[in-house]
Amino acid sequence: MTHLADLNTPAALVDTERMQRNIGIMQSRMNALGVSLRPHVKTAKSLPVAQAQMQAGARGITVSTLKEAEQFFAAGIRDILYAVGMVASKLKLAAALVSRGCALKIIADNAESARAIAHFCSENGVQLKTLIEIDTDGHRAGVLPDSPELIEIGQILHSAGALHGVMTHAGGSYALSTPEALQAMAEQERSRCVRAAERLRQVGLPCAVVSVGSTPTALSAQHLEGVTEVRAGVYVFHDLVMRNIGVCSESDLALSVLTTVIGHQAEKGWAIVDAGWMAMSRDRGTQKQACDFGYGQVCDVHGQPMQGYLMDSANQEHGIIARSGSKDDHITQTLPVGTLLRIFPNHACATAAQFPEYQAIHGDGVLATWPRFYGW
Amino acid sequence: MTHLADLNTPAALVDTERMQRNIGIMQSRMNALGVSLRPHVKTAKSLPVAQAQMQAGARGITVSTLKEAEQFFAAGIRDILYAVGMVASKLKLAAALVSRGCALKIIADNAESARAIAHFCSENGVQLKTLIEIDTDGHRAGVLPDSPELIEIGQILHSAGALHGVMTHAGGSYALSTPEALQAMAEQERSRCVRAAERLRQVGLPCAVVSVGSTPTALSAQHLEGVTEVRAGVYVFHDLVMRNIGVCSESDLALSVLTTVIGHQAEKGWAIVDAGWMAMSRDRGTQKQACDFGYGQVCDVHGQPMQGYLMDSANQEHGIIARSGSKDDHITQTLPVGTLLRIFPNHACATAAQFPEYQAIHGDGVLATWPRFYGW
Repeated sequence: MTHLADLNTPAALVDTERMQRNIGIMQSRMNALGVSLRPHVKTAKSLPVAQAQMQAGARGITVSTLKEAEQFFAAGIRDILYAVGMVASKLKLAAALVSRGCALKIIADNAESARAIAHFCSENGVQLKTLIEIDTDGHRAGVLPDSPELIEIGQILHSAGALHGVMTHAGGSYALSTPEALQAMAEQERSRCVRAAERLRQVGLPCAVVSVGSTPTALSAQHLEGVTEVRAGVYVFHDLVMRNIGVCSESDLALSVLTTVIGHQAEKGWAIVDAGWMAMSRDRGTQKQACDFGYGQVCDVHGQPMQGYLMDSANQEHGIIARSGSKDDHITQTLPVGTLLRIFPNHACATAAQFPEYQAIHGDGVLATWPRFYGW
Repeated sequence: MTHLADLNTPAALVDTERMQRNIGIMQSRMNALGVSLRPHVKTAKSLPVAQAQMQAGARGITVSTLKEAEQFFAAGIRDILYAVGMVASKLKLAAALVSRGCALKIIADNAESARAIAHFCSENGVQLKTLIEIDTDGHRAGVLPDSPELIEIGQILHSAGALHGVMTHAGGSYALSTPEALQAMAEQERSRCVRAAERLRQVGLPCAVVSVGSTPTALSAQHLEGVTEVRAGVYVFHDLVMRNIGVCSESDLALSVLTTVIGHQAEKGWAIVDAGWMAMSRDRGTQKQACDFGYGQVCDVHGQPMQGYLMDSANQEHGIIARSGSKDDHITQTLPVGTLLRIFPNHACATAAQFPEYQAIHGDGVLATWPRFYGW
C-alpha cells in the first residue's frame, strides 16, 4: 500500500472512515425523519463517493451542472436533480439526457423559464419534470411561497405536463451557529416549502415532490412533515465552516490537504508550505465566523490538529503557516523543512474543486485514487 | 465559426487581440531594458498562450509546479524555471526531467534544501542548476541579500556545481497603486537582488543569472542594471487587481467569464447568473483596493463594461449581479432571463484555474478551444 510519505504534494486526502461515518449519520437521520435523501454530489464530484452514498440508502442525487448529470448518468446513476435554474439555452442538453433514459429533474423560479420549458416540451414531445424553486430565506433564488408568481409558474408548467413539485435550499443556515437558530431555520425551510406545495394543490395543480435541504438544516430538523426528500452535500466531508456552525466536530473532517514544509522566515515565525490558494482555494468562509481559521487548520501528518497553527495567508503555490496569537520562535524546529502536514479546509466544496483526484486513505495508507469531474 | 451565443455557459473567454497586445507590450519593454523575458505560465497554463509568448521573443518559461514543467517540456519548451522552493522529496521528479533533456532550473532559500540538492547531485551525478531565492520585500520566501545564510547556501550549492544565480519576486508590489511607489519597488527588487549577486561574486562564487519580476514591477522598472532576466505572469491576461494597481486599463483585460442570466429577485435589484464562485473563483483581490469589484465587473456580451454593475456575491454555481450604490428597480428589463454577460475577474490566475479550457475569441466569434493543465 502506498504510504502518505510517498505522495507528491499537495494532495487531497479523503479519510474514508470519517466519510463513511458522515454518510451513515445523515442517512440514519433521514430514515428516522421518514424522508428520502438525495445527496448533492457537487461537493465531491466523484463516483466512488456518490456510490457510497447510494449504497447507504440515498435515492438519486443532486447535481450543480449538466456535466455532472452526464458524468454520473454515464456511470449508472439514473435519478438526478439539476438544482440550478434552467434557461432556454440548456434545454437541449437536458432533453438529450432524458431521451437516453436519465430520470432528470430540473428547476425554474420564473415565468419566462417556465414558458421556455413548457414550449420546449410541447414542441419536442418530451417530458422535463420540473420543480418550482421556492425562496424560504431571502438568501438567493426562488419565488416566495405566498406570491402570485408561484401559481402562474405552476400553471405554465402544468400546461405541458412538466410540473413535478417544489424545492428550496435555506442557504441562510450557513450564517447561524446555535442549535436553536438552526432548528428554527430548518422549520422555516420546511414550513414555507410545504406552504408552497399546499397552495399549488389548492388550485388543483399536482405537487408530487417537496424537496428541501442544506447540511445545517438537514442535521437540525426536528420533523419534516410534508417533505418528501432532503438534499445536502458538504456533510459527506464536512469542513471548518460546518464545525463553526456547530453541526460537526473537528474529528468529523474527512477532507484535508497534504503539504510539505519548503522553507521558513524564522524571525517572523513562519513556515512556508507547498500548498497555496491553488490547493486550498481562496475560500475564507470562516472569516466572518466566531473562529477564523485563515486558510485552514494545520494538523500533523496523521491528522492530529496542532492547536493554534493556521495557514495564515496564501499565494498561488505557497502557504504561510504561523501560530496565531503568539509567534513560534522555534518554527524551524517545530516544523523543519520536509515536514508533511495536513490542512483542514474552510470549505470542502471549494478546496476539493482544486484537485483532479483524491487519495482515499485509511490511517496513513492510500487505498485508492478517486478521480473527480470538473468544468461545465 | 462558433458564435459566443452557441457556447455552453459559464465559459472562459480569451480575447486574443488583447492578449497579443499585452504580450507585445511586455516583450518590447524587456527588449528596451535589455533583459530576457521568462514569462510565468502559471496564469494561463495553456500551450497556445505560452507559444504566443515564445514567438514574441520570450526565452524560456517559469512554472509553479513540476507538472507544468512536464507538460510544457513534453510540448517542446526546454528552458524552464520551477520557481517554488525545492525540497528533497521532489528532486527525483526534477532530475528525471533533466535526464530527458529539459534545461530545468530550480530554486532554494535555505541551507537544508541546498544540502539536499547538493547531496542528490553528487550521489546521482546530475546537475540541477539552482538559483538562490532572495527576499527583497519581506513578502514571502527568500534569504535577505545581506544575510550570512546567502553565502552559506551559495557555498553548499557550489560544492556540487549546482549554483546558477539568484532570483526574487517582489510580490509586495501588489499592495501598491501609484507609479512612484511601483517604480520604487521595482528599484528595490532590482537593487537588492543585484546586491545578493554581488555578495556571492565577492566571495568567488559564480552567479550567472539575476532573475527578478512581478507584473507590476516589470511594467514600472526604469532600468534593470545587473539583471539578466525578468519573470512576469498575469500581464498576459491582466485583471481588475492589475487595473487597480494602475499597470493596465479595463480595455486591456483579455480574460472574462461568459455567463447567462437565469433569474431575478426584482425587489432586491438582483439578476442571478449561472457563474458562481466555481467559475469566478473565491478570489476577492480587489476587496482591499481602492475600487472593490465584488466578484467581478459585469460587461455586455460584446465585452463593454456596464458601469456600476458588479457580481455582488457568489454561491457555487450562482452569481448575484447588482448595481452598486443605487438598486436597479428595472433589473428584469435591464438584464432579462437568457441575457449573456461577460464578467471581468479580480484575479486572472485564480479564475482561469477554474476552467478546463479557454474559448479563444476574436470579436464575438470563437477561433479555437485552448486546453489548460491543472493539478500537481
